[in-house]
Amino acid sequence: MRLLFLGDVVGRAGRNVVLEQLPRLRRDWALDFVVVNGENAAGGFGITEAIYEEFLEAGADAVTLGNHAFDQREALVFIERAPRLIRPANFPPGTPGRGAALVEAANGAQVLVVNMMGRVFMDPLDDPFASIDRELDAAPLGLVADATIVDFHAETTSEKQAFGHWCDGRASLVVGTHTHVPTADHRILPGGTAYMTDVGMCGCYDGVIGMDKEEPLRRFTRKIGSTRFEPVAGPGTLSGLAMETDGAGRAIAVAPVRIGGSLSEALPSFW
Amino acid sequence: MRLLFLGDVVGRAGRNVVLEQLPRLRRDWALDFVVVNGENAAGGFGITEAIYEEFLEAGADAVTLGNHAFDQREALVFIERAPRLIRPANFPPGTPGRGAALVEAANGAQVLVVNMMGRVFMDPLDDPFASIDRELDAAPLGLVADATIVDFHAETTSEKQAFGHWCDGRASLVVGTHTHVPTADHRILPGGTAYMTDVGMCGCYDGVIGMDKEEPLRRFTRKIGSTRFEPVAGPGTLSGLAMETDGAGRAIAVAPVRIGGSLSEALPSFW
Amino acid sequence: MRLLFLGDVVGRAGRNVVLEQLPRLRRDWALDFVVVNGENAAGGFGITEAIYEEFLEAGADAVTLGNHAFDQREALVFIERAPRLIRPANFPPGTPGRGAALVEAANGAQVLVVNMMGRVFMDPLDDPFASIDRELDAAPLGLVADATIVDFHAETTSEKQAFGHWCDGRASLVVGTHTHVPTADHRILPGGTAYMTDVGMCGCYDGVIGMDKEEPLRRFTRKIGSTRFEPVAGPGTLSGLAMETDGAGRAIAVAPVRIGGSLSEALPSFW
Amino acid sequence: MRLLFLGDVVGRAGRNVVLEQLPRLRRDWALDFVVVNGENAAGGFGITEAIYEEFLEAGADAVTLGNHAFDQREALVFIERAPRLIRPANFPPGTPGRGAALVEAANGAQVLVVNMMGRVFMDPLDDPFASIDRELDAAPLGLVADATIVDFHAETTSEKQAFGHWCDGRASLVVGTHTHVPTADHRILPGGTAYMTDVGMCGCYDGVIGMDKEEPLRRFTRKIGSTRFEPVAGPGTLSGLAMETDGAGRAIAVAPVRIGGSLSEALPSFW
Ligand SMILES: [Fe+2]
Ligand SMILES: [Fe+2]
Ligand SMILES: [Fe+2]
Ligand SMILES: [Fe+2]
Ligand SMILES: [Fe+2]
Ligand SMILES: [Fe+2]
Ligand SMILES: [Fe+2]
Ligand SMILES: [Fe+2]
Repeated sequence: MRLLFLGDVVGRAGRNVVLEQLPRLRRDWALDFVVVNGENAAGGFGITEAIYEEFLEAGADAVTLGNHAFDQREALVFIERAPRLIRPANFPPGTPGRGAALVEAANGAQVLVVNMMGRVFMDPLDDPFASIDRELDAAPLGLVADATIVDFHAETTSEKQAFGHWCDGRASLVVGTHTHVPTADHRILPGGTAYMTDVGMCGCYDGVIGMDKEEPLRRFTRKIGSTRFEPVAGPGTLSGLAMETDGAGRAIAVAPVRIGGSLSEALPSFW
Repeated sequence: MRLLFLGDVVGRAGRNVVLEQLPRLRRDWALDFVVVNGENAAGGFGITEAIYEEFLEAGADAVTLGNHAFDQREALVFIERAPRLIRPANFPPGTPGRGAALVEAANGAQVLVVNMMGRVFMDPLDDPFASIDRELDAAPLGLVADATIVDFHAETTSEKQAFGHWCDGRASLVVGTHTHVPTADHRILPGGTAYMTDVGMCGCYDGVIGMDKEEPLRRFTRKIGSTRFEPVAGPGTLSGLAMETDGAGRAIAVAPVRIGGSLSEALPSFW
Repeated sequence: MRLLFLGDVVGRAGRNVVLEQLPRLRRDWALDFVVVNGENAAGGFGITEAIYEEFLEAGADAVTLGNHAFDQREALVFIERAPRLIRPANFPPGTPGRGAALVEAANGAQVLVVNMMGRVFMDPLDDPFASIDRELDAAPLGLVADATIVDFHAETTSEKQAFGHWCDGRASLVVGTHTHVPTADHRILPGGTAYMTDVGMCGCYDGVIGMDKEEPLRRFTRKIGSTRFEPVAGPGTLSGLAMETDGAGRAIAVAPVRIGGSLSEALPSFW
Repeated sequence: MRLLFLGDVVGRAGRNVVLEQLPRLRRDWALDFVVVNGENAAGGFGITEAIYEEFLEAGADAVTLGNHAFDQREALVFIERAPRLIRPANFPPGTPGRGAALVEAANGAQVLVVNMMGRVFMDPLDDPFASIDRELDAAPLGLVADATIVDFHAETTSEKQAFGHWCDGRASLVVGTHTHVPTADHRILPGGTAYMTDVGMCGCYDGVIGMDKEEPLRRFTRKIGSTRFEPVAGPGTLSGLAMETDGAGRAIAVAPVRIGGSLSEALPSFW
């Protein structure tokens, strides 16, 4: 299968580049399944139902979230009728929505999509290592799931790499999100899981993690904020990861994707 | 000038790949100045005088450090007789060594090398933004310094990007270190400063940030440690950044460098 | 029932004052049940089997722990044969020992003792609020447990106060440990649970949280450590909480206990 | 001199008890100097000019602040015309207001009042240890200052105790604020400085650090907030510290003060 994962979409700049590029990529690359992390899609904070629908129409099969999942309060409600919207699995029991879902691809394949949050330098949720074991056991790769995509939303490289090794052989892809900067360490781990520490953001890279740089600089230097954070208006970069799986759901190729904006372009050579 | 910056060298795997590759790169690329971050060179923790000397012999002009600067206690002593060893500038007054130095390149140029630590999710040192202003004012780029290289050793992408913007136009390069994973966002900021959120590590990428993965996994899953962290033994990757400056010290080209080990290869196209 | 809880015993100074005072208090106050937090008893870090036995002989019915539970590796082994040694209940499944126990008092009463860790500014363990619900439901106060003592080992006053309210009416006592400083806010919450944000330490108060002050001051001011932390040698203060329960296990009286050393003396007026 | 320090006033419950009690205490105890920490006075977040004036009229000689200093934006402006309003001294240079002031007491004595913030588990400001040295050197106790009162606004007991020892002999009082819970470790350190790890809050103790408990409990258990924090409405407790100095500004007596609300009453025995 041909899979595409797009990192945290930040504000209008991010939405624009996704809506412009994704339909074309889906067609040109004959993609079977696309996941978009949408935790920052609505003005940098959370997601609305309208934006979720836009992503699906543009070619996304599933939308994942993170620590900003419910910044837009409406998400607590519409997530119940949005089966392809996945919030972190290790939120407390009783949280609206779901942390994992078997989503049917256009070709009929069953794809397990899991969203999980790290705990180092983040809010202390339930143990992501124990939680991912439960999710992966419930729909084993190659038996129940034709492909398994894990979005690990975490801060530190150490927790992310440890999580990748922990899942190796049990997922098609473990990809990090949250830092809003793509890493250059995409690779296939020994057990057949594609891995990348962070897939970066879809948004404008001329600010500070997608936000206009004035307010962050003010807070760093004066320690007193002035206004709220606003996404920077400017040309967006699409940042993601492309991969291909074999019949058993193992990764056979992985490559970064960067299109537009101020980062160097990257495209898969294998398609 | 042609500059090369190599990220945190971790243990023997990192030292090996640096000692093997650097002499050749220095010659083949006609490098004018090389900086190596050595904070993890000695068994993953700190640096010894012997290792510092090895780096200089292999072609480094300066060695920077970070939060692990003084893990090897001998560094508190030998740093005073090691003029090209630079520790974070925002350690408290009275800390042995220096946080910035004007180092003469082989071609006679004066290169300002500054090491600075971030504070978000790290030990609270003096304000890095105020500190870098003092350092950059003391040896202005284009007047006193022919090139200025700032190693910003920090955890978060937000503090690093803010720091890059803060220095833009006043340094040839602001490069992040500490996360041990290279980012793919190398670029030249509007004011002429080359920037990359993290340059990655020189070491083996088959563990957890350069360490054997068993102990980190144990601590993440069982919350009780068992042994100390040990660098993973395996093929090392050289990870760094190559750049070229104009006569005023501004960046005119920047590219990632990744050679060997398990990451995708990257070489500058402009040399 | 007459209950006494003694806070984190730190090193020799703490052990000495406990061993000297506890037998006398047990007798003079006709105590029915005594809990001692022993996480720092062995040189400030963890506990040994010999020390655990000493506490029982001196009059403790149960010993609780905290983040330093397993600093002495032998505790991972002997805790299995030490039924009155309770480690935090929200460590991962599979951790040696137990997080809660029904302990028989000398008068035949069944006392539920639970040890739990907070997560704010501490290592991210499982959710203490969900975990305490399970423990309290398994042995309801007044039905199974004649008294229930919860040692909440946590850093912040906000998490501790929230935890006290959460348990109010379901425990005889929720007492905080870990900060090594007694608070003056002992009281009975509306539901009948005695509460105190932190019970303080049993140890010498002339250092920094029980440790010799030189090394902490060096680290705070120079940011480079020099030696390991050592408990300060000096006169110890016994710091704890005394309380009385009614037939339903509800608190009817609560008072701080401070004897010896450099703090102001406090004794229950009701015995 | 007879000094009174009142801890963080939280919302209306806190203001009410201060305005009710302070005029009487000032008269009955013949107080020479009163400091009130007002960082949470306005709805729990910051302070307004009207509230500052109220505190002065009720008998305060100086008002200190903390991390919430500028939550009410008007404080950035009126602090310049409010000479007795002291914000943390280790905010960045250029911050409006002052971090220390020599304030004249009613009896003509010069009292140095310093506000300082800790850095452990708090925003990383400038080094409080270096900063307090500068402030204490500028107005030495016994030479320039007849009494010196240091409000150390910090989270951890370790940083607070270390700070107390650091200042011992150079200040009349080092008192901690910020945790909103009074500690029971008031004492006079060997060098003559009165010390108390935290002086507690003036406010209602039936919530979570002065706030209505529902929203904190919701965030702790569900990890998703619902509304903003609101101060709990209920009977307030006045919480503070009383002390007396000798002619050299050294402490000769120290006692906790707790009046009203749900905490046990405490009054100085020496007046
Ligand atoms: Fe994000
Ligand atoms: Fe995020
Ligand atoms: Fe490093
Ligand atoms: Fe580092
Ligand atoms: Fe402790
Ligand atoms: Fe502890
Ligand atoms: Fe406060
Ligand atoms: Fe505060």
